[in-house]
Amino acid sequence: MPGVLALSLPAKGARFTLTTVERRPPRADDVRIDIAFCGICHTDLHVGHDDWGGTPFPLVPGHEITGVVSEVGDAVTRFAVGDRVGVGCMVDSCRKCAPCTSGEEQFCAEGFVKTYADRDRDGAVTMGGYSRSIVVSEHYVLRIPDALELAAAAPLLCAGVTVYSPLRRWAAGPGRKVGVLGMGGLGHLGVRIAAAMGAEVTLLSRSPDKRDDALRLGATRFADTRDSAETARLAGHFDLLLNTVPAPLDVDAHLGLLGVGGTFVTVGAPGDAVASYNVFSLLGARRAIAGSSIGGIRETQEVLGFCAEHGIAAEIETIPAAGVPEAWQNLSGVRYRYVIDVATLGTA
Amino acid sequence: MPGVLALSLPAKGARFTLTTVERRPPRADDVRIDIAFCGICHTDLHVGHDDWGGTPFPLVPGHEITGVVSEVGDAVTRFAVGDRVGVGCMVDSCRKCAPCTSGEEQFCAEGFVKTYADRDRDGAVTMGGYSRSIVVSEHYVLRIPDALELAAAAPLLCAGVTVYSPLRRWAAGPGRKVGVLGMGGLGHLGVRIAAAMGAEVTLLSRSPDKRDDALRLGATRFADTRDSAETARLAGHFDLLLNTVPAPLDVDAHLGLLGVGGTFVTVGAPGDAVASYNVFSLLGARRAIAGSSIGGIRETQEVLGFCAEHGIAAEIETIPAAGVPEAWQNLSGVRYRYVIDVATLGTA
Repeated sequence: MPGVLALSLPAKGARFTLTTVERRPPRADDVRIDIAFCGICHTDLHVGHDDWGGTPFPLVPGHEITGVVSEVGDAVTRFAVGDRVGVGCMVDSCRKCAPCTSGEEQFCAEGFVKTYADRDRDGAVTMGGYSRSIVVSEHYVLRIPDALELAAAAPLLCAGVTVYSPLRRWAAGPGRKVGVLGMGGLGHLGVRIAAAMGAEVTLLSRSPDKRDDALRLGATRFADTRDSAETARLAGHFDLLLNTVPAPLDVDAHLGLLGVGGTFVTVGAPGDAVASYNVFSLLGARRAIAGSSIGGIRETQEVLGFCAEHGIAAEIETIPAAGVPEAWQNLSGVRYRYVIDVATLGTA
Repeated sequence: MPGVLALSLPAKGARFTLTTVERRPPRADDVRIDIAFCGICHTDLHVGHDDWGGTPFPLVPGHEITGVVSEVGDAVTRFAVGDRVGVGCMVDSCRKCAPCTSGEEQFCAEGFVKTYADRDRDGAVTMGGYSRSIVVSEHYVLRIPDALELAAAAPLLCAGVTVYSPLRRWAAGPGRKVGVLGMGGLGHLGVRIAAAMGAEVTLLSRSPDKRDDALRLGATRFADTRDSAETARLAGHFDLLLNTVPAPLDVDAHLGLLGVGGTFVTVGAPGDAVASYNVFSLLGARRAIAGSSIGGIRETQEVLGFCAEHGIAAEIETIPAAGVPEAWQNLSGVRYRYVIDVATLGTA
C-alpha cells in the first residue's frame, strides 16, 4: 500500500513537514475518501501545541474533512464510489452503549475515537484530514448535500454541529432571544443558524469591526461587550447565551443577561477551564450554566441538511497546503474559517 | 384595630419576645386568616441572624402558614369564612410583568413581596406567621385540600414547592434517576415527592443514621457521601441531582455523578454563595448547573394537590410557641420540620 501525502508535525514545537502516512486497506464497512478540503479548527492548534498534554507525535491534524468516495468495503451499503462525503470529529466509538445506540456517539461511554491524535480501536494512532485520503467506517461518514460546496461545507462538520446541537437542544426558534458570544469559526455559524431557526439573534463581541458582518449574517443587534452601559441594557433579555469565546469570562455578568429560565451554554474549551459563579445568579431566575460538545453522527447529518435547505455555509478563506503554517499564526484574523485545498498538498 | 399576638425579635441578637403587631383591615381582595400552624424554615434563622444584611427589626418570621379564613373583603371570590388556607413565601407581586401573568410570581420583575421582613407595596414592613393572624390578598392565598392536616401541610408551602418545582421542571418521573443531596426539611420532601412522581430516588447524605428514614420515605438507595468508593460507583448514574445542602459542595465531584444531559440543581441558599466548576465537567456530557427558587402561586396550589393525592405531607415535630428559641438552636436535629402550634402563643 503506497503512503498517502500528509502535512505532519513531527514533534512538539517542530515545523510542518510534508510526509506520507499509511491508511489501512478498507475493511468490510469502510470507505476510502479522497480528501478535497479540510477546515482548520482551533482545536488543531491546541493539540498541535500539546496544550492539554498527551499529543502523540508525529501529528496529522484535521477534523473538518470533505471529499469524494474512492473505494468501498464489501459490506458498505450507504455509499458508493463518487459520492460527496465528509468526516467530522469522530471516526469510531463503541457502538453499543446507550449514547451510541441513541445516536449521541460524542458521549460514548468508552469515549469516541477522535479523527486524529487518538488511539483507534485497533490500536493505531489516528491521522486527520491534512492529508490526501482517509479510510473510515461508513457509520461515521456524512453525506454532503448537492446544494453545499465541498469547501464551505467542511467547517459544518465540527464548528457547525457544535453550535447547531445546543441551539436545537435549548430550542432556538421563533420568539426566542439568542445571544452569541464571540464571532469566529463557531460564532459566525451560530449567528447564521440561530437566525435561520427563527430566533432573534444578538452578537455580543468586543470587536465592533464585526458589527456589519453580524448583521449581514442574520443578527438583529450587535452589542459591544467593552461598553458596559450597552450590555447593561440587555439585562434579563436572553433565553439562551451561546458562548463560543475560548477565554475566561465573567460568568455572573453573563448570567445577569439571561431572563427567567435562561441558559448560558459553553461550547468551546477555554485555556483556563475553571470558572466560578454565585449561586444567587442561578436561584434568582432559575438560570442554568451548561456545556455542549459537538453532536452525534445523526445530528451532524441533520445540520448539513439544515444548512443546505437554508442556503447556509461557512464563510471561508481557502488556502493552499503551503499556507497552513501562516494560517496557524493568524487564526484569530480569518473571517471566518480557513479551509485547506488539499489537492495542493505536495504540489508547492 | 386591636393588636395581634406575635413572637418577635426586637433587634439583631436579641431574644424572642411576645408582642403585638398591627394587621391592616381587609381591603376588597384581602382575606384575614386565623393562623393555626407555622413551620420553621432555615431562612427564618438566616434573616433573624441578619446573615444577608438588611433585616428590618423588630422581626416576626414565618412563611409556612396554615389556618382558617376569619374575614373576607368585599371583592373576594375564591374564599369564604371557615375555609382552610395557607400562605407561603409571597404575599404580593407587581401582578403585571411576564412572570406574574404567567403564574411565576417568584420571578416578578419588580421582586415579589416576601411574607416577612420585606417592604409591602403600601410601604409597610411585612410580618410573618409567628403570629395569631395575617391579612393577605386572596391572589396569594392557597387552599389546603381536606386530605391534608393543617400542621403537616404547612411545610409544603415553602419546603414542598421548593423541591416540587425543580422535580417537575427537570422531569422527575418513571425511568428517571434522581439523587437528593441532604435530608432536612427540603430533602425529606424531595425524596417523598420524587418517589411519588415515579423516579428512582437515591438519598446522598453524610448521615448514615438517616438511611432507614430515606428508604421508608421512598428512596431505593442510600449513599454515604463520606464513603468515596460508594459514591464513585454512582459515577454517571443520575439524570437529576437536587441539592438541598445549605453548605459549599464540590461541584465537579457531583457533576461526575450525572449522566449525559444531567442537571445539578441547587434550591437552597448556602452561606458561601460562590462556587466553582471545571468547564470540562459540563462539556463532556452536556451537563448543566442550575438553580431554582420556590415556585409560583399556581405551582404551590399544585404541590398541595399532588401531596393530597399521594398521601404525602411533611414529617413534623409540633412545638408550642414557647419552644421556638430552643428549636432555632436545634434546627439541624429535627426530623424533619418544626411546626409551631400558633394557638399556644401567649398562653405559656
